Amino acid sequence: MHRIVIDVMGGDFAPQNPIEGAVLALEEYQDIEICLVGPEQVIAQELQRYPDCPRERLRIVHASEYITMEEAPGIALRRKKDSSIRVGLELVKKGEADAFISAGNTGAVMGGSLLYLKTMPGVAKAAIATFLPTLSGTSIMLDVGANVDCRPEHILQFALMGNSYARYVLNKPAPTVGILSIGEEDSKGNDITRQTFRLLNECSLIDFRGNVEGKEVYKGVVDVIACDGFTGNIALKVSESLAYMISTMLKEELGRGWFNKLGAVLSVKALKRLKKRLDYTEYGGAPLLGVNGAVFISHGSSSPQALKNAFRAARIYVERGVNQHIYDDITKTFAQLNHIENNGQV
Amino acid sequence: MHRIVIDVMGGDFAPQNPIEGAVLALEEYQDIEICLVGPEQVIAQELQRYPDCPRERLRIVHASEYITMEEAPGIALRRKKDSSIRVGLELVKKGEADAFISAGNTGAVMGGSLLYLKTMPGVAKAAIATFLPTLSGTSIMLDVGANVDCRPEHILQFALMGNSYARYVLNKPAPTVGILSIGEEDSKGNDITRQTFRLLNECSLIDFRGNVEGKEVYKGVVDVIACDGFTGNIALKVSESLAYMISTMLKEELGRGWFNKLGAVLSVKALKRLKKRLDYTEYGGAPLLGVNGAVFISHGSSSPQALKNAFRAARIYVERGVNQHIYDDITKTFAQLNHIENNGQV
Repeated sequence: MHRIVIDVMGGDFAPQNPIEGAVLALEEYQDIEICLVGPEQVIAQELQRYPDCPRERLRIVHASEYITMEEAPGIALRRKKDSSIRVGLELVKKGEADAFISAGNTGAVMGGSLLYLKTMPGVAKAAIATFLPTLSGTSIMLDVGANVDCRPEHILQFALMGNSYARYVLNKPAPTVGILSIGEEDSKGNDITRQTFRLLNECSLIDFRGNVEGKEVYKGVVDVIACDGFTGNIALKVSESLAYMISTMLKEELGRGWFNKLGAVLSVKALKRLKKRLDYTEYGGAPLLGVNGAVFISHGSSSPQALKNAFRAARIYVERGVNQHIYDDITKTFAQLNHIENNGQV
Repeated sequence: MHRIVIDVMGGDFAPQNPIEGAVLALEEYQDIEICLVGPEQVIAQELQRYPDCPRERLRIVHASEYITMEEAPGIALRRKKDSSIRVGLELVKKGEADAFISAGNTGAVMGGSLLYLKTMPGVAKAAIATFLPTLSGTSIMLDVGANVDCRPEHILQFALMGNSYARYVLNKPAPTVGILSIGEEDSKGNDITRQTFRLLNECSLIDFRGNVEGKEVYKGVVDVIACDGFTGNIALKVSESLAYMISTMLKEELGRGWFNKLGAVLSVKALKRLKKRLDYTEYGGAPLLGVNGAVFISHGSSSPQALKNAFRAARIYVERGVNQHIYDDITKTFAQLNHIENNGQV
């Protein structure tokens, strides 16, 4: 049995969506136990809507407070000692659960994870990975916001963590890995990416394909794109901003004149399918990699279905022992690097 | 008379499009003289198509070589001493022309400009500015690729140069300026952006609006977005990649089934108008700011119309003395900063 906690108070549609997502997951996956964390009464009331859900695999843990989407994470974590995020993460820390899912305040989930769970032995910085739809499938990019100033060794670790995630959770037996940079040649990029390039080139555990330029990101040229959290965050958020602008303009243009409106009605199915292809709720949430435990940060607007998918990802993550693979790969890689350094080959 | 040089051999449709663009510009703007640089015979032959163009304002300067789009800029500039890029830039250097336009190899135009024209007094690094269509108009972003590793003073200079360009060429009397970063508060961002934030906050010549997050870029919250060339290039190229993916997927989806095809035909006007709104050829080319002279780098696939627009921008640039404004603003700002530093206020 894999024991997964969900923050009932996280997200724009709490507590409804987290609880519905949990019920869907309980029904679909027989090998998980779910712990709902939040105000007892709220949970009890919401659960009345699901009289047939398998209660024997459902646990409720009371948390009297919760952190809103707007609160400053650091302050909120200090002040609200009984928040659903903290109580949930403490369950993982105490070994009473294996994974934690929240669609709540991203900064608070991340900050709380670092504060209570801490990074794994050997991991210098945890990273948030995101899924990008591409012309040839899906790539994952990390870090997209947990770490602003990164050294090359950190980005190497992100690459190793993303590699394990792609391999064991996304079922890509031999993931390809690149680093986000400008220019294809190894001489291109900034100081950090050039040094990272050399480190990844030495790493025997990764199928390293060199620099990935911005223009190649949505072609899907590699499975894993590693970068510092500043660059990754800019790339992700600029993409979201552009997608929003294009869809807004398209709606405006399709709304002009009856001729276009007719066209829009007729092609609405195509637009819906496009939206589905661009939608990555299928992956349920962005994994926070490198902490003790499995943490998934779902989008604030996640549907019950998306949250159910977060349970699926968390379940596979725990079952396949991704953290152990990450630990092994990082330990092995850094031992090799030290060996190379000590022998003066670099 | 403003004297503007165009590289006849630059771009995917050379020499046709550069020459047609020049002819269109000559006809539309009576106060410019154009110098066509490239192989004499090629130019003479192409010009036969325009028997009525005002030849008295047209000069031809022979250059026997040209640099292709694929060549490594550094090597090509060294080897091809008689390239159209070099010959054209030398005309500006010698004072025989005021501005240079090329739709050729971006790296070679940039490298050649730095090599032959050099940066203006007081300017530490030249920057490439690009135009972004937004939900509320157009923003310019710089640097998008000329400088990979930047210090805060460099980004301050980019902000000042972008400010002058927006004001004098784009006719925005009081441009607003932001820096590309993560998080809105001044405490957010990486080491470089936090330091840049403080510098811009001290700058009296700029209407500084703080950090611009990735998610705000296409909302058009400011007129000028300053950033280092690495981050700017990633933001620009990731955007191009995403736009390409969305348009490809949309075409695929609209091509499925007769019902959708009919919808696509009916809404094709809307899609065309959308494309036009996203298209920034109206601006003709990306200015390379901070060099002695005016240099515009147009897209390789530029239409004659787009190149005509580059002439328009170059003409305004020269007429309004943008370089003088840039020089004045940078000199004044850095004198103020030194004054503040010397008085221990920072």
